Amino acid sequence: MCWNLFANGGVRQKISAVRAHTIDKNGVKVNSILCMVSPMRSYTTEINVRYGETDKMGVAHHTSYLLWFELGRTGLMRASGHPYRELERNGLLLPVLECGVRYLIGAEYDDCVRIETAVSELRSRSVTFVYRAFRGDQLLCTGWTRHVCVTPDNQLRRIPPEVLEAIALYAVPPGESF
Amino acid sequence: MCWNLFANGGVRQKISAVRAHTIDKNGVKVNSILCMVSPMRSYTTEINVRYGETDKMGVAHHTSYLLWFELGRTGLMRASGHPYRELERNGLLLPVLECGVRYLIGAEYDDCVRIETAVSELRSRSVTFVYRAFRGDQLLCTGWTRHVCVTPDNQLRRIPPEVLEAIALYAVPPGESF
Amino acid sequence: MCWNLFANGGVRQKISAVRAHTIDKNGVKVNSILCMVSPMRSYTTEINVRYGETDKMGVAHHTSYLLWFELGRTGLMRASGHPYRELERNGLLLPVLECGVRYLIGAEYDDCVRIETAVSELRSRSVTFVYRAFRGDQLLCTGWTRHVCVTPDNQLRRIPPEVLEAIALYAVPPGESF
Amino acid sequence: MCWNLFANGGVRQKISAVRAHTIDKNGVKVNSILCMVSPMRSYTTEINVRYGETDKMGVAHHTSYLLWFELGRTGLMRASGHPYRELERNGLLLPVLECGVRYLIGAEYDDCVRIETAVSELRSRSVTFVYRAFRGDQLLCTGWTRHVCVTPDNQLRRIPPEVLEAIALYAVPPGESF
Repeated sequence: MCWNLFANGGVRQKISAVRAHTIDKNGVKVNSILCMVSPMRSYTTEINVRYGETDKMGVAHHTSYLLWFELGRTGLMRASGHPYRELERNGLLLPVLECGVRYLIGAEYDDCVRIETAVSELRSRSVTFVYRAFRGDQLLCTGWTRHVCVTPDNQLRRIPPEVLEAIALYAVPPGESF
Repeated sequence: MCWNLFANGGVRQKISAVRAHTIDKNGVKVNSILCMVSPMRSYTTEINVRYGETDKMGVAHHTSYLLWFELGRTGLMRASGHPYRELERNGLLLPVLECGVRYLIGAEYDDCVRIETAVSELRSRSVTFVYRAFRGDQLLCTGWTRHVCVTPDNQLRRIPPEVLEAIALYAVPPGESF
Repeated sequence: MCWNLFANGGVRQKISAVRAHTIDKNGVKVNSILCMVSPMRSYTTEINVRYGETDKMGVAHHTSYLLWFELGRTGLMRASGHPYRELERNGLLLPVLECGVRYLIGAEYDDCVRIETAVSELRSRSVTFVYRAFRGDQLLCTGWTRHVCVTPDNQLRRIPPEVLEAIALYAVPPGESF
Repeated sequence: MCWNLFANGGVRQKISAVRAHTIDKNGVKVNSILCMVSPMRSYTTEINVRYGETDKMGVAHHTSYLLWFELGRTGLMRASGHPYRELERNGLLLPVLECGVRYLIGAEYDDCVRIETAVSELRSRSVTFVYRAFRGDQLLCTGWTRHVCVTPDNQLRRIPPEVLEAIALYAVPPGESF
């Protein structure tokens, strides 16, 4: 398990891990999961709930949180020095493969909602972001999105190592929950 | 396991199950899960992908599917004879507690997408819908949403038995996957 | 005024009008407005109001109508034999340059709303669509969108004559209001 | 014309104007338009374009601007000391009666867009907001929305004078364009 291998490691060691592989029992090279750095840093962004984001229940529609999560990971990547728009200009996309959301308390119109975004899993070709939405110190919602790195014609690609290295700084440490 | 108890049952038997309880080891009444009816019926609805539902990746944004799923369960409930708008007028809401989506192929602008909706779990106070989105015979996406029954001031309530009975007709049979 | 010139005309004559120009006082060729065909045909499409399209006022958010209008003009073009997606594949876009909406009655969740779409102005490089949204025979909303024909790198282009000809069949007759 | 009457006036005079009426030729009391204060102040808010706000044309969908305008007028009212959410809690709504948008340049994903919001017309029962969207010093889009003041059961009401007074500070001066 790579967590042990790099338990004392810093960013440099983690990064060499990106390029590491394991050989499975059939002799096939398998991409090993990246080690996560400790302690966790998360990226924080804030939004005000738009009227159009509410529904007739009077609170933010459940899809709104996914749009705020999108702002969160966009901000995280921008802050990491590798804005997602640059990645796209270089011909790499990170479409959402899977997502999950758990709703606790509904955000209301004009509430200031704080989105904390971190990275929970980082592999050479995929990344999972995790999110928490807060109003003050109330946890409203948690979620995650898993992305895979592809070209515009949908060919699987490695996430560039410098991008992996930069966003690894936002990784949830092993053994800790977000 | 209730699946066995009602393996040969029809709607009537299932419905008595709605009102059944089990007593746990502390003597507390626990709402038992509703039995699912066999064979499965799902509700089918069709949409055309709107331009505004696409994003710069050229396919439908990942939140669009959740809006289509919403159309799916609305249609299922309408078809069951218990439209969700009636439920709300009677003071019961079914907010989304949790959701999950897995994306396989991106729907494109103006594609006709078929949403199949069924019920995967039915309890006295909560319901889980499951969804599949197709373009022709291509599976584009699968998902699920879990809902709890509450009053407008957020008090937990039982789903009315006649509603449970009606939507149980769309339940995924036990042991079958959707 | 071209309306007079083609008052007795059919599609053939209208179409020659598409290619006609007038010369203004500076000797510059000016694209004359296309004649509109009589009697009016409009394209009808129906939607069910999604829960996520409502807002906390309990009715459809004002932007929802613009998304329905989009479905309307997409349907009109598809019905005309020249789907907008084909136009885009051939390198021509019709971005919205201007829009206007007037709201009369709010559409409610799960209402069946009928969108009638027609063409109110057709020029060689631009087209204006007009819309009416109904619930039964209640007029809920009227609107219009003006589009210009451009390449993906934003160069102004003529709308292909066969497209003009096809959508002209949905034009509001001169002197009539939609 | 009320502009002349209050040309030298300040907020106090303007506010007495809110309560003024004119008598039309049939002897019916008509609500006179409120005077606008000079010099103009506009409310500025900034957003980052979300991925989900773009469409397959690669720029922000035309409805996104209306959602940003909504943030603009929400912010203006909050800054005026009379947040719209308070107005709603007091039983007054300001639904959109009419809107119009003119698009010049498309905002791109992750662009920082600045929305300037002002008030172009203020009457005792209605208000018109005007908006400009900028990217740096590039004007991307202009728009306006007209709102009427009603109760939740749709009865026309006067905008409370203290609200009129407060938002009048954001009014476009007479004779000036926004």
